[in-house]
Amino acid sequence: MAALRARAVLLTGSNRGIGLELVKQLLGGPRPPAWIFATCRDPEGPRAQELRDLVSRHPNLVLVKLDVADPSAIINAVKIVEGKLNGAGLNLLINNAGICAPVTLETVDSEEMIRAYKTNAVGPLLMAQAFLPLLKKAARESTDKGLSCSKAAIINISTIMGSIEKTSESFFKPVISYRCSKAALNMLTKCQALTYEETGILCVALHPGWVKTDMGTQEADLTADTSVRGLLSVLPILSEKHSGSLLNWEGKAIPW
Amino acid sequence: MAALRARAVLLTGSNRGIGLELVKQLLGGPRPPAWIFATCRDPEGPRAQELRDLVSRHPNLVLVKLDVADPSAIINAVKIVEGKLNGAGLNLLINNAGICAPVTLETVDSEEMIRAYKTNAVGPLLMAQAFLPLLKKAARESTDKGLSCSKAAIINISTIMGSIEKTSESFFKPVISYRCSKAALNMLTKCQALTYEETGILCVALHPGWVKTDMGTQEADLTADTSVRGLLSVLPILSEKHSGSLLNWEGKAIPW
Repeated sequence: MAALRARAVLLTGSNRGIGLELVKQLLGGPRPPAWIFATCRDPEGPRAQELRDLVSRHPNLVLVKLDVADPSAIINAVKIVEGKLNGAGLNLLINNAGICAPVTLETVDSEEMIRAYKTNAVGPLLMAQAFLPLLKKAARESTDKGLSCSKAAIINISTIMGSIEKTSESFFKPVISYRCSKAALNMLTKCQALTYEETGILCVALHPGWVKTDMGTQEADLTADTSVRGLLSVLPILSEKHSGSLLNWEGKAIPW
Repeated sequence: MAALRARAVLLTGSNRGIGLELVKQLLGGPRPPAWIFATCRDPEGPRAQELRDLVSRHPNLVLVKLDVADPSAIINAVKIVEGKLNGAGLNLLINNAGICAPVTLETVDSEEMIRAYKTNAVGPLLMAQAFLPLLKKAARESTDKGLSCSKAAIINISTIMGSIEKTSESFFKPVISYRCSKAALNMLTKCQALTYEETGILCVALHPGWVKTDMGTQEADLTADTSVRGLLSVLPILSEKHSGSLLNWEGKAIPW
């Protein structure tokens, strides 16, 4: 199996759940990135303790404070990452931060719709905008042909619950603000793929499965370990033929 | 061809473009509704002159001030409509109001993303929430079997530009905030269909075509007259088998 050769990786929402597991498995892999930028909203708080412990043992791991719903925080994060990269590019941006509230069509209000959209759809858009110069730089630095996660890529962590086609099968969970924001994220991914293709950047949306995390609850199918092993085995095989699509943690396509 | 027998219809964004044409053709049809509630943001302003002229000639047309991005304005509109209906239900809610800004992935910002989402996706959600009791009342009053626009229906005016599947073919227009908000509206329509089916309410998203309006520009394919004739010939044939789908002005299904 192809290995991920990304030199610099940034991922959001990395203090717990799938994000934290991605950090751990990237650090423990056969070829750890030279830089892993792990962002979260409150790196000093009690919920980032495990991430801080990892930072103390791994000099290639950099903790960055970032709320993706705050455009000015994104600009600050770019400056920190640029400083560390010292002229090199960013290969892989993983937009993992996401929120999900247990609201239905009856109980949701305007504020909750906007809150979910800001973090789950607008955040990934602004992240890609802000980090685009560093992603383009990575694409230019690479001698690889075609598109790949080792060269330059935007991975949006989406969900099958953002698939309109699949909504009838999985409707036991209403979560309307989450579903609508993730359908928008899927549209964003398609537009990013079409827009950024010519600059050498791969754009894919990934469904991690239903995972035992704070968001997924302990009733979920998969452990974070299994889901993230799957996701990290999918990343190295992605190419231009996958750009603009939604795939699950096993690399299978999901309809929109 | 079946005729639309809706007694009470409400449509948003009705002072120009497709909305105004819908009002005109509903008024001029073989069986005009007993009540047409035509809403727009500024019914006193110069851009609602044509609608005011229609009101002066048609006692069944009621002009209601409403910005669908303002939740409190929606609550006020329900009170006005309830007062006129005097105990009867609302058969048909047409969420037509929409905005589109010529922004790309490079030029869009957080404010524009939220602005489009509020009007194009959250507005239709809040409208359906607020008018649900009147729609349910119409469904209960009807002796028709199955679902229909003559009984009780929510029609969300969407677009092929909200189809992720079709985005590659129509990508000459970036309009990212519009596309993302309309993909979310399509998801909303599917969830509304699944949620409201048991109360007898049909929910469908319709693509009016590319229409010569202020939004569509004069380069567009269709006149408002042709588009609306198409839409109004589709409405009477919609049934439970169409609920939760996206159809064009000729009744053809569009993939998500």
